[in-house]
Amino acid sequence: MAIEQLRSLTYEHLEALAIGAGILGTGGGGSPYMNKIYVAEILRNGGEVPIVPVAELPDDAVVTPCGGVGAPTVSIERLKEGQEFLRALRALEQYTGRNATHMISGEIGGGNSISPIIVALQAGLPVVDGDGMGRAFPELQMDTFSIYGVKPTPNAISDVRGHVVVYDHIDDAHDLERYIRTVTVQMGGGTGMTGPMISGDEVRRTAVRGTLSFAVRLGEAVLAARAVHHNPVEAAAEMSGGHLLLTGKITDVDRRFVAGFARGRLELEGMGDFTGHRYSIDFQNENLIVTDEAGEVLCSVPDLICIVDAETAEPISTETLRYGLRVAVLGIPAPHLIATPEALDVVGPAAFGYPDVTYHPLEGVYGGKLANLVSPS
Amino acid sequence: MAIEQLRSLTYEHLEALAIGAGILGTGGGGSPYMNKIYVAEILRNGGEVPIVPVAELPDDAVVTPCGGVGAPTVSIERLKEGQEFLRALRALEQYTGRNATHMISGEIGGGNSISPIIVALQAGLPVVDGDGMGRAFPELQMDTFSIYGVKPTPNAISDVRGHVVVYDHIDDAHDLERYIRTVTVQMGGGTGMTGPMISGDEVRRTAVRGTLSFAVRLGEAVLAARAVHHNPVEAAAEMSGGHLLLTGKITDVDRRFVAGFARGRLELEGMGDFTGHRYSIDFQNENLIVTDEAGEVLCSVPDLICIVDAETAEPISTETLRYGLRVAVLGIPAPHLIATPEALDVVGPAAFGYPDVTYHPLEGVYGGKLANLVSPS
Repeated sequence: MAIEQLRSLTYEHLEALAIGAGILGTGGGGSPYMNKIYVAEILRNGGEVPIVPVAELPDDAVVTPCGGVGAPTVSIERLKEGQEFLRALRALEQYTGRNATHMISGEIGGGNSISPIIVALQAGLPVVDGDGMGRAFPELQMDTFSIYGVKPTPNAISDVRGHVVVYDHIDDAHDLERYIRTVTVQMGGGTGMTGPMISGDEVRRTAVRGTLSFAVRLGEAVLAARAVHHNPVEAAAEMSGGHLLLTGKITDVDRRFVAGFARGRLELEGMGDFTGHRYSIDFQNENLIVTDEAGEVLCSVPDLICIVDAETAEPISTETLRYGLRVAVLGIPAPHLIATPEALDVVGPAAFGYPDVTYHPLEGVYGGKLANLVSPS
Repeated sequence: MAIEQLRSLTYEHLEALAIGAGILGTGGGGSPYMNKIYVAEILRNGGEVPIVPVAELPDDAVVTPCGGVGAPTVSIERLKEGQEFLRALRALEQYTGRNATHMISGEIGGGNSISPIIVALQAGLPVVDGDGMGRAFPELQMDTFSIYGVKPTPNAISDVRGHVVVYDHIDDAHDLERYIRTVTVQMGGGTGMTGPMISGDEVRRTAVRGTLSFAVRLGEAVLAARAVHHNPVEAAAEMSGGHLLLTGKITDVDRRFVAGFARGRLELEGMGDFTGHRYSIDFQNENLIVTDEAGEVLCSVPDLICIVDAETAEPISTETLRYGLRVAVLGIPAPHLIATPEALDVVGPAAFGYPDVTYHPLEGVYGGKLANLVSPS
């Protein structure tokens, strides 16, 4: 069954986008909730954001990624002011002397799926149907733009008070990550980032394609299942190409705020078919590794480990994990671009501090049915 | 006796500038040594840098402060690459779309007396005879530009690897200080900073005047005394309007590297007229407070506490303090602009963590004889 590609985003898509992006956030990427409310206010009375497939970008397009930086724990406790991304974009344009022609999500997972839509509405720009991760990751160097050689600067951040910082001539995204992270912590833990400006042909070479459509259609599948009392978790698994790794009850959450990240470990007790087993999930903003009581790794980065409510498939982000929640954990195969050898150097288990964990890819195709995304005729 | 104002800086001035600025550095401002060598290489075969008195600046001049950021402990262990300041200036010009017309020292004390001379030579610009402190202070908000309301951004830093960071829309220099300090630590502990761009009339309102001439003439007085076997410490005191607070031997140095600063305390045992007394000096990059064994404060910020070699009056910076050195400690009255009530809020003892110390100004006039600086006829 072919799925229709999104050509514009309207108010009607927002609920589905928040659910789909929340699932792809694998616990991180920031809560879509506040961003959704902000965009809903603008789109409620009509209006739409044009969505451009990656394949249709002109070579000389000036595509600008954007996304929020900071621990999700902060993003839900400290409200954004609303203009962070636009101010960062304007500073980037002022510095470079170039104007952005398209916005793109740095990471489709979580609230950052909606970040470029906010700027697009404010600046009157279209949004590209794709992103730099196909999920969420905690650090800047972990996007496909960087992994495949796009220089990470010029880049700009802005905070809730209007402060602006522009970075340039930094070739290694690890350095940029450190510089941006440290200022973001000083700014209170959350900033809006834009940059670098990427040409259309570079985006075609490096972006994970179709992920905005993927997120919306995944959310629509969950909503449709809920409406007809089918199992929303099964619907999400089927639509996304994911596997049900376990269902269980959360028995412990050990979460710390370390150097700008929410790090920790989750303990679960199996339910249903999984009764009698115990599991743990390590996270750094995003869920990294699922282990069973024998220490066997069931799923690891870069594959997506998505914790959702066992009944409704509502995504559960790192900051809302708590004792007693009954959850299903889906494993979705990573998109190809983040599972190549050069990508695994940056986003494989070792890059997150697990040198002894070997990445064994889940079977199947990222996007599942959505891999067959087609343009509307 | 009137002292002649500097109209251009040549190779012949460098030795005196390094000594005079070293004394005014009160322990900090970075060692002039490396900067001096760099400039000497350029000026050795002729060449000069035009020096412009503050009073002669056109209203619409674009005067740009510059200086190294970081603990002096780092600046002597990690060589600069030479283009840091120029790259920061070019980034600032690119961002603002304006070209600097004059450079000025952010702080005349220590190596930062020479920082604007480096850029001036590279960019072909004149240097203003003045600065933002009349000495050295450890933090950015502690200059007279900030104290008297000049907005501290746009501002740019660059590091030894060519990385550039531009800051904008930050009204409170304390915030800028935190953002720049934290990135500087990430960059290895030392960066070159330029900015903000200040109009000529604002510089006339806010700069400490004549301090480049002051530093050169002070150094010349020391060199002249050495040449004729007079007492260089007395010569320095007389020329600068300073008081000999004590001579003594260093008996202990407790120095830590904390959050990008060299903090600590020095213990001294009096010699000569001061035999039988014990003293301590607290520092944070710069010397802050001199206390005797009874706990009485002999001198405190913003007055200048200058540690020099007891025989040669060679300035001794915080990073070269060590057990056994025989030193003289001069107290030089602060220039008026850093001793007003609004300045004391920022650079008085309380601002450095000594709320119980009351600032009792030393008698006399900053600059002493040099207060009578006159233009050459």
